[in-house]
Amino acid sequence: MRPFTSTISLDEARRRLDAAVRPIARTERVAIEHAAGRVAASDVTAPMDVPPFARSAMDGYAVVAADTAGASKSTPARLRQLDRIYTGQPSSVTIAPGTCAEIATGAPLPAGADAVVMVEETAKTGDEIQIFAPATAGHHVGRRGADIAAGDRVISSGDVLSPSRVGALAAIGCVDVEVFAKPRVAILSTGNEVVEPGRTPKPGQIFDVNRFTLGAIVSAHGGVPEPQHPAQDTVDALVAALDTCAQMDLVVFSGGSSVGERDLVVDAIALRGEMIFHGIAVRPGKPTAFARVKGTPFFGMPGNPTSCLSNAYILLVPFLRAIARLPPHTPRTVQAPLGRRIVSAAGRHQFYTVRLRNGIAFPAFKGSGDITSLSQADGYIEIPSDQSVVEERAMVMVTLF
Amino acid sequence: MRPFTSTISLDEARRRLDAAVRPIARTERVAIEHAAGRVAASDVTAPMDVPPFARSAMDGYAVVAADTAGASKSTPARLRQLDRIYTGQPSSVTIAPGTCAEIATGAPLPAGADAVVMVEETAKTGDEIQIFAPATAGHHVGRRGADIAAGDRVISSGDVLSPSRVGALAAIGCVDVEVFAKPRVAILSTGNEVVEPGRTPKPGQIFDVNRFTLGAIVSAHGGVPEPQHPAQDTVDALVAALDTCAQMDLVVFSGGSSVGERDLVVDAIALRGEMIFHGIAVRPGKPTAFARVKGTPFFGMPGNPTSCLSNAYILLVPFLRAIARLPPHTPRTVQAPLGRRIVSAAGRHQFYTVRLRNGIAFPAFKGSGDITSLSQADGYIEIPSDQSVVEERAMVMVTLF
Repeated sequence: MRPFTSTISLDEARRRLDAAVRPIARTERVAIEHAAGRVAASDVTAPMDVPPFARSAMDGYAVVAADTAGASKSTPARLRQLDRIYTGQPSSVTIAPGTCAEIATGAPLPAGADAVVMVEETAKTGDEIQIFAPATAGHHVGRRGADIAAGDRVISSGDVLSPSRVGALAAIGCVDVEVFAKPRVAILSTGNEVVEPGRTPKPGQIFDVNRFTLGAIVSAHGGVPEPQHPAQDTVDALVAALDTCAQMDLVVFSGGSSVGERDLVVDAIALRGEMIFHGIAVRPGKPTAFARVKGTPFFGMPGNPTSCLSNAYILLVPFLRAIARLPPHTPRTVQAPLGRRIVSAAGRHQFYTVRLRNGIAFPAFKGSGDITSLSQADGYIEIPSDQSVVEERAMVMVTLF
Repeated sequence: MRPFTSTISLDEARRRLDAAVRPIARTERVAIEHAAGRVAASDVTAPMDVPPFARSAMDGYAVVAADTAGASKSTPARLRQLDRIYTGQPSSVTIAPGTCAEIATGAPLPAGADAVVMVEETAKTGDEIQIFAPATAGHHVGRRGADIAAGDRVISSGDVLSPSRVGALAAIGCVDVEVFAKPRVAILSTGNEVVEPGRTPKPGQIFDVNRFTLGAIVSAHGGVPEPQHPAQDTVDALVAALDTCAQMDLVVFSGGSSVGERDLVVDAIALRGEMIFHGIAVRPGKPTAFARVKGTPFFGMPGNPTSCLSNAYILLVPFLRAIARLPPHTPRTVQAPLGRRIVSAAGRHQFYTVRLRNGIAFPAFKGSGDITSLSQADGYIEIPSDQSVVEERAMVMVTLF
């Protein structure tokens, strides 16, 4: 058995991870109905004006603005109605002084008109329209190109496509858009004891948990999980698994990076790549490794489900989002008094799960191997490596899952 | 043309929406790899203990605890090693007093042993193991069922399935889980002027924007968008569209709920359902309607893209999440000084989009019809109906998109 020779601090681990980020370069085209949340891979310039014609911003009457000068309730302007203009149907009439056309919101302004008077400021008798308020040129008119002018940059490369940006693409007639591909993330649990749910575990075996927790994390943060079957505890099996994952954008193994004789991920990395760190002074999650295998970043996560998922939140999520070109994740936090004293391991930065009940944070951590340490928690608090006790009633900042 | 006879306040609109929520009752089974973010529709009880056997929590030696009493560096306990126990492979040996077995983290504890001494507190000479520290019964042992005991409730109906809860389901061997169905949301743009991207607009026509912005919103908040082709501006066409959408869980039309003669959604609702409100004292988005059509809730959103999307954030998202049984959405907010004075419409609650530049919030609102009012904004501020001016440099709370 080989104990850890050394660990690095969480800050140092984060520095090395930041330095190893290579944002994805591969792109693809997706239909705009599936583009929300994706990252634009090129600028998009409008090929047309939006709106493509001057249009009424109100239900009312299209007028020559000069005709309405000085109009009031007692001295209305009187205009003759030439047409009714509905949306989608340009009018063939020309509005000359003394005339007007009824017009719907969004309908194209007829030739000659330069303003719209809203219906609430008018009255109608036969085809004579009384106008009770003056309108200046452009009043209640959406001019051609007011929203987007031909040649405007509608989307910049790197923009995350929010619902409104998808809408802007639709407005200029785009049916699809070039986006950065989602990183493909191989997920593999190592260990002779690990079996997939649906099979019957033999004595000494347990169900694979990490493949599912890691898959959920990867999906939620811009990646495509590519789950692999569990690998046996031999160097050959792990090297073969690494080779199988060579085309992925990121590889995440769990288990096999602790210090037991059979923990062979370290040996497999030595044969195929370069270890960047192995062992972090955090709890849970000390036996976490990070390497580069022929250019592909590799995470060796602890096999314990809570250690694995905890470090996925802390280390994998920021790394994956950076590769995916997504902005950093900013989980919500709440302040709460601690419901029970916590004693922490000195010298290790601790992530301690808590449950919120009536605004009080109660310790929820059971053991690194217990998935219920997380599944029955609402969030976690951090205890720095130079602190060993957090007293009952101390105010703590809870980062919510 | 029919002006609004009255509007209701935003608070009143929210009250009526809350009262109209009927959380979805339909359920379905999904594979656990696709269950993250879904809402459990029934309790899940563990059919087995997790772990299903007592296991070592450390790499070290499985011992009879009593053998180690008083052990120290200078007076080690000396034990004879009987076996090496790897994960996934139960040992057939029984640990009697005076003996031990090397054991890997996660491996099943052999019969007779009741504690594990970590490798760092041992030394090995041939098959004699020296133990340098005493261990009490249960030390470094994960007892059978310590994480989850058979009969424990692992998931409660109504739980949102976080990554760790998916992991807990995997741990007890579930391959799928019963969840509430995602509400199916019909999305339809009305208006003769609306054409789908990919077609060539005729004079007076514009591309459909709302179908895409609403679809993105629905997907992001737990619904399944079911886009429909745009409907023409006739009562017959709208009634036919309502009938087509009868099997949906929620129906969202945009356009046609303003007050023009051709705005016929109101007439269509009168033929098929019951209007709950029509017209809200907000800006943008006054001409928003809400109805019930043969039991199915119906939103009539404004046709203007920014009005439509703005009210989708404010009214549709909370309603949809409540139907989907998801917890309320809590967007992030930041405080910032306002970069330029804003004059607001008195008597209407205003949502004013802003752009953040160097920590200063600059007004981004152009017009209700301009999608760039939103696509070039980072969030919005709210100006209550009794306030008409927000001064430059005033601190405002920006709700981020």
